[in-house]
Amino acid sequence: MKKNSKEAIVTAAISLFNTNGFSGTSIRDIAELAKVNTATIAYYFEHKLGLLEYCFTYFFEQYINKIEEAYASIDHGAKGCLKRLVANLLHYQCENNHLASVVYREMSVDSQIVREIMSTYSLKEKYYLQKIFEKGFEWNEFRPHSIPYLIIQLKGLLMMPFMNTNYLREVLYIFPNEPFFEQKYLKEINFWIDKTLSFEIREKKEAFIK
Amino acid sequence: MKKNSKEAIVTAAISLFNTNGFSGTSIRDIAELAKVNTATIAYYFEHKLGLLEYCFTYFFEQYINKIEEAYASIDHGAKGCLKRLVANLLHYQCENNHLASVVYREMSVDSQIVREIMSTYSLKEKYYLQKIFEKGFEWNEFRPHSIPYLIIQLKGLLMMPFMNTNYLREVLYIFPNEPFFEQKYLKEINFWIDKTLSFEIREKKEAFIK
Repeated sequence: MKKNSKEAIVTAAISLFNTNGFSGTSIRDIAELAKVNTATIAYYFEHKLGLLEYCFTYFFEQYINKIEEAYASIDHGAKGCLKRLVANLLHYQCENNHLASVVYREMSVDSQIVREIMSTYSLKEKYYLQKIFEKGFEWNEFRPHSIPYLIIQLKGLLMMPFMNTNYLREVLYIFPNEPFFEQKYLKEINFWIDKTLSFEIREKKEAFIK
Repeated sequence: MKKNSKEAIVTAAISLFNTNGFSGTSIRDIAELAKVNTATIAYYFEHKLGLLEYCFTYFFEQYINKIEEAYASIDHGAKGCLKRLVANLLHYQCENNHLASVVYREMSVDSQIVREIMSTYSLKEKYYLQKIFEKGFEWNEFRPHSIPYLIIQLKGLLMMPFMNTNYLREVLYIFPNEPFFEQKYLKEINFWIDKTLSFEIREKKEAFIK
């Protein structure tokens, strides 16, 4: 058995899940594209659901690492920390745009495995975002606001290009796999952080006088 | 053949596509839930793809109507027009939240039918959004900005709760089918329009002096 056949299976699975969806892909399709036999897939992943689980875990382990890496700088300010987090996650998604698309689409299906992933990784992510927002309120960097509604907006902005890659490409002629996209879109989210989330200096003074 | 069996089939299909995905649902499942036989489904929709096509068309015909309804008020100002458009679309999505979830998820799969839907409805939507943004720049209501990148953000904010309903419910305890959600989330998007998209009065003056 070739050492890199596991990798070839994962690459083939991500590509096919991305184009045809998880349910629209068979083990046979994956075996064919990866140039392995179906028994090899069974050896590594048991069944198709095992492959999806592997994709989820592989994606979110690194995803949470990127969040924790940024969170380490929280004592230097909430706004800087959030901008670092956004830059990390955007870069990570751009680098793994096919995997991100697969993971985000399949996370929208209601299943046992999705609920398990949410109760570990999504709750962890929520914990860190909540901490950053709370510190931002406390340190007068962010306008006081409902945290869940801020999370919806931030995640909406972050996930949109990877949940709708066809739309971006076919309708807007924007390609989320190009380096230019990452730079430009990062500025957009930072602009949201500066304008919608943060106090402006003028407002800060007013809040201070009160 | 009962007059309302077509409706029962569509309702059952939306519910099953929503929970299990399009590819994860069989005609047999739909027939069972709708309490019809599979021949009745074939009579109305030919095959499963015909049902998905029906869902897409049904959803986007009304969706574009909501946009056109709002666009009729463009001469009273771009910002007011965009806020009306957002209110219309959010209300429409909340009222049809299962259908919206199905449509948005299946739109992320790359297929012939999706490309056709995009080349009619998504291009129409883009046309109106582009017009509104251009008028907003011209009338000094909005900051000059890349239109495709504004569309990504606006659509990201609008679609997020319906592409990630499980996440909202399980992780954030927010329920997009409740009337409270619609009111509150509309305020959030309007805040984005006011803060990120629009000039503030102070900035407007500065732009005028230049």
